[in-house]
Amino acid sequence: MSSEESTRLGGASVPETIPVPMGTRDVLPEEMAELREISGRALKVFTQAGYGEIATPALEYEETMRLAGTDFAENVYRVPDKDGQVLTLRFDSTVPIARLAATRYRAAEPPLRFCYMQHVYRAIEPKRAESRQFLQIGMELLGLPAQAGDAEAVELLVSVLRESGLTDFKIAVGDVNFFAERLATAGITGAEKERVVHEMHTRDLVGYRRELAATSVGKADLESLERLAIARGGRELLEAEGAEQLIKLDSLLAEAGVADNVIYDLGLVRPLSYYTGTVLEVFSPSSGFPLGGGGRYDNLVGRFGRELAAFGFSLNLERLHLAVLAEQEAGA
Amino acid sequence: MSSEESTRLGGASVPETIPVPMGTRDVLPEEMAELREISGRALKVFTQAGYGEIATPALEYEETMRLAGTDFAENVYRVPDKDGQVLTLRFDSTVPIARLAATRYRAAEPPLRFCYMQHVYRAIEPKRAESRQFLQIGMELLGLPAQAGDAEAVELLVSVLRESGLTDFKIAVGDVNFFAERLATAGITGAEKERVVHEMHTRDLVGYRRELAATSVGKADLESLERLAIARGGRELLEAEGAEQLIKLDSLLAEAGVADNVIYDLGLVRPLSYYTGTVLEVFSPSSGFPLGGGGRYDNLVGRFGRELAAFGFSLNLERLHLAVLAEQEAGA
Repeated sequence: MSSEESTRLGGASVPETIPVPMGTRDVLPEEMAELREISGRALKVFTQAGYGEIATPALEYEETMRLAGTDFAENVYRVPDKDGQVLTLRFDSTVPIARLAATRYRAAEPPLRFCYMQHVYRAIEPKRAESRQFLQIGMELLGLPAQAGDAEAVELLVSVLRESGLTDFKIAVGDVNFFAERLATAGITGAEKERVVHEMHTRDLVGYRRELAATSVGKADLESLERLAIARGGRELLEAEGAEQLIKLDSLLAEAGVADNVIYDLGLVRPLSYYTGTVLEVFSPSSGFPLGGGGRYDNLVGRFGRELAAFGFSLNLERLHLAVLAEQEAGA
Repeated sequence: MSSEESTRLGGASVPETIPVPMGTRDVLPEEMAELREISGRALKVFTQAGYGEIATPALEYEETMRLAGTDFAENVYRVPDKDGQVLTLRFDSTVPIARLAATRYRAAEPPLRFCYMQHVYRAIEPKRAESRQFLQIGMELLGLPAQAGDAEAVELLVSVLRESGLTDFKIAVGDVNFFAERLATAGITGAEKERVVHEMHTRDLVGYRRELAATSVGKADLESLERLAIARGGRELLEAEGAEQLIKLDSLLAEAGVADNVIYDLGLVRPLSYYTGTVLEVFSPSSGFPLGGGGRYDNLVGRFGRELAAFGFSLNLERLHLAVLAEQEAGA
């Protein structure tokens, strides 16, 4: 290209600024070095605890991913393939790892322990400040049922967060069964239940109360369910509400010395339908967003051909990094 | 899900085997640990040489990537976005890094040195044994023209290969200008030239001779061009053919003590049109495929708004890993 041509190209064809798609970004060297440092430490914690790192394809058959349910229908990227099949961009790592475990480890003695660090992709709504692509680091523990599996996962999560350099954090722990049973006991089912659960998902307390009030539930149940939505605390809360499964978990966490890192949140409902028991989210005063989350999904792996109880969590590595930086700056 | 339901699901809905798309694969723990080891060593070589690791989005606007030319038109994955724009899955890392350098480093003092490790995606033809997704590790050196830039890149490539554990390899080095000039001197232009270059790309010597014979080129030029297609050797070859630019490069490589790792290949033509000078490919007796390649692309960064001479190479990390394993097994 002559310099005249390139000037013409520069003037006529090159936009003043060249944007990347909203919700994606370049990672520049200083940040990248810090992300490598944090992720290296985290992966070391995982592998030293016996979790083997794996990677799954970024593109999988939509048909395969649909075996997991329809949670992803709206926000998954569909990619037409040359042979007419529809591929999807990896939406999370739990579903592909469930597929991998049920097929590649069909005959392996449980428990199976895997960790990963890979990107996931979400077809975001334009104009919302969401991420289209983000880097997750996480684990899946297959074949170890509640509460032993839940406790191992929470202990590991505490180790990973500490080793990443984060000092101030809380792991909110709930139980989707407990909440569902309380709704069932109150006689809230079907479409009513879905609406109530949705408001709980989005933590819209006003909406939650509105949807509860729209049901024919009695005064005592109404008050009890309203209390549940804001009930956070330690073992005394679990005992007051009769959350038997979480009480068993709390005993294991206390034995492991990590109970102080946990706050029970009986209104915690994760947005994916495959969860079947304990669920968790990670919070830090240094971050306006949860740093990660996870839970028990005892029916998912079976949909790919092998029945295995399972628990997994993932951390958003970029949010975790920002929280660590914010702590360091506040302390400096 | 009751156990009865899950049995039904297992029997009725779950295929006997659940395939991943051809050309993609799961990476299991043993291999993953070795890939981490090799890539960790390679990234360390890069960063210690002053190359800052960066990452670019997996999804970019097709319009932006098209500024680089139309090389990618056929085999790029297009992903329709919710707002009607068309996104493309990262096809290579050189073009996004050219964009990044021209925009995020618009005013930075050259040379700029970047390295990366990220996947690229290719919409392969069904039934061909090609990869749909593969992991590349590589570098881009911007703002250092030939031959100083070429020499720095080749030296670094030798260090990365050695540090990865590979002992037996050759870097084939050619010059797309030299080949193009020889065609021009022989009067081969336009569509004839394209056909000849295509056969050279694909290393189809029969087709190459056929296309040359179909031109009106004289006997002496014909013999000279046929010789060029199979001309491989050291400095004596460059001198015999009068490859001035490569002679200058060879002197720098000899000074740096890496000339023995190089074999000049005057018929080497890389498949991407953005190359403007020295090009290279990496071969090992332990691999049936090139382990990587690269070259000089002095006009590409300018298309994104900043004129910068540039050289880059990438290695296919999985092929490199397999070659290292094969060497170890042969030696064991």
